[in-house]
Amino acid sequence: MPDLRKDPIVGRWVIVAKSRARRPHDFDTSPARRPGGFCPFCEGQEDKTPPEIIAYRRPGTPPNGPGWRVRVVPNKFPALEIEGDLNKRGEGIYDMMRGVGAHEVIIESPRHLISTAELSEPELQEVLWAYRDRLTDLKRDRRLVYGMVFKNVGAAAGASLEHTHSQLIVTPIVPINVWEEMTGSLEFYNYRGRCVYCDMIQQELATEKRLVHDSPTFVAFCPFASRFPFETWILPKVHGSHFENIQPAGVEDLASILRTVILKLEAALDRPAYNYILHTAPFDTQELPHYHWHIEIMPSLTRPAGFEWGTGFYINPVPPEEAARFLREVETETWEPERVAVR
Amino acid sequence: MPDLRKDPIVGRWVIVAKSRARRPHDFDTSPARRPGGFCPFCEGQEDKTPPEIIAYRRPGTPPNGPGWRVRVVPNKFPALEIEGDLNKRGEGIYDMMRGVGAHEVIIESPRHLISTAELSEPELQEVLWAYRDRLTDLKRDRRLVYGMVFKNVGAAAGASLEHTHSQLIVTPIVPINVWEEMTGSLEFYNYRGRCVYCDMIQQELATEKRLVHDSPTFVAFCPFASRFPFETWILPKVHGSHFENIQPAGVEDLASILRTVILKLEAALDRPAYNYILHTAPFDTQELPHYHWHIEIMPSLTRPAGFEWGTGFYINPVPPEEAARFLREVETETWEPERVAVR
Repeated sequence: MPDLRKDPIVGRWVIVAKSRARRPHDFDTSPARRPGGFCPFCEGQEDKTPPEIIAYRRPGTPPNGPGWRVRVVPNKFPALEIEGDLNKRGEGIYDMMRGVGAHEVIIESPRHLISTAELSEPELQEVLWAYRDRLTDLKRDRRLVYGMVFKNVGAAAGASLEHTHSQLIVTPIVPINVWEEMTGSLEFYNYRGRCVYCDMIQQELATEKRLVHDSPTFVAFCPFASRFPFETWILPKVHGSHFENIQPAGVEDLASILRTVILKLEAALDRPAYNYILHTAPFDTQELPHYHWHIEIMPSLTRPAGFEWGTGFYINPVPPEEAARFLREVETETWEPERVAVR
Repeated sequence: MPDLRKDPIVGRWVIVAKSRARRPHDFDTSPARRPGGFCPFCEGQEDKTPPEIIAYRRPGTPPNGPGWRVRVVPNKFPALEIEGDLNKRGEGIYDMMRGVGAHEVIIESPRHLISTAELSEPELQEVLWAYRDRLTDLKRDRRLVYGMVFKNVGAAAGASLEHTHSQLIVTPIVPINVWEEMTGSLEFYNYRGRCVYCDMIQQELATEKRLVHDSPTFVAFCPFASRFPFETWILPKVHGSHFENIQPAGVEDLASILRTVILKLEAALDRPAYNYILHTAPFDTQELPHYHWHIEIMPSLTRPAGFEWGTGFYINPVPPEEAARFLREVETETWEPERVAVR
């Protein structure tokens, strides 16, 4: 069972997995990369993963066999484990608890696709429904307070398998970055009476200089204080704090803009490694006037070094205005998302 | 001139450099890696760097020529620039200022050494004196409030040149990570009346299970909530908040333990890429009872992915107790720091 340990100075929690390695170079516990070769996420290989939690599949097909379109399974190398109680305790001045939580993998296609942009819009919609269904199910577990959906694409972004997939990690405490978003946006709300994200949307739509894509219900832009080159956020225009309250029309529109933005990033940067992260409100909150769910997409073009680790400052060599202009203007009609590994 | 831009939600500042690149793949603005070949940091190549700010050199040798032991020069690709005023201003809801500050490189040896462990203790002492002298000088500039000394070793840790060197970035605002350390340790102090770092030192010396190296005046241990495998901190046993107040005996002892710990990390992990970061109090503070300067060393064995970026949680596959045991027991007598590139 992993531990959750709290830094006594800044309050940051760390997941410490118990390793049985005996020598330092045994310590790399990530699953092997398997570009090209055998893939445990492909249709027909269902017995190579833990049994499925849910799958959207052809009527009449049994679980853990072919016939699915999206399939959710427990991570074979989980960061947190679902069984047991938290056993919160101290060790001298330190605080810790058992690493209770969930770590699931959303396999986005039965075919060995590599890019989200290779999915059709209806296929991508089903991926978003899987996010929503898993969050809705897991938030009933009173031990758990936060669900983070994220996607790693390419080795430079931390992906270990190339078959297109997302992950969901559900934690028994609100992560520090989410806590900072919640408290920062609440401070803004208390001071100005408005949602800071709604204000950002309004300003970005008005000036257009960091705008990447505008649609009737969603907007994509490169944020004013982008940490990374070509960092791009997607937000719903209508305020809402919880992604899992999304409606069918919202899923359709989100799939469309998410696919468009990823296509643009792939065409502009020639299939970069990237992460995207769904930011949504903690489980134990009702609809919040100050928080606004959104997706942050971060290409892995630069690598944080000592200065970034030490300060939390980021050095971004590409002004978001330039990045957004490239992304607005990039030609995607002739771009063919292909079955080749990301760079 | 770079911009400093503030994220309106969490208050994080980002340095945005104006790029003149015209196409996305022109955007990699980091200097080329030059392992092996020509090195602008070697003795005799002084004209390949901007003119030196200070150097410890043989009496009678003129600046910007051979004869130095440690040499400090402006970074040729500075993240911040020293000239001009801050020009703090708004852009709608956003806050920004000019990227005023300093970005210097401390070249640690005239010889083309790659590892800190290749320096003798007296040589490493001079490197520490250079940190101290530059911080003391720069803190007289009233526009600047924080000086971060750090070292990147190996490409995986963000280094672009292999010749052993450190960097110093001085900023006009207190970085968010430093701010969190300052406020977190103040909270602890207000509640318990003690320095949290002093408490940690006491507990680590008492239990010994995360202890890496103990010396009369400094201690090295793997912190309880280590974010990274083999993360190791070095702290002075006597409380002090400002590194730049270090005395000659302290420099001697610090050089000794720093060299020992790096030798241990190199021997245990076969010359890993790593960062070390000097954490010290902001310029505009007097001696603080709640803050304790220290050095954090972080080998680059894992790579943060979507989950880490999204949550601020880290997943560490190596318990610090195991890492510390390896580092305590590793054989360094037969380990030869060599002139080969880090992995």
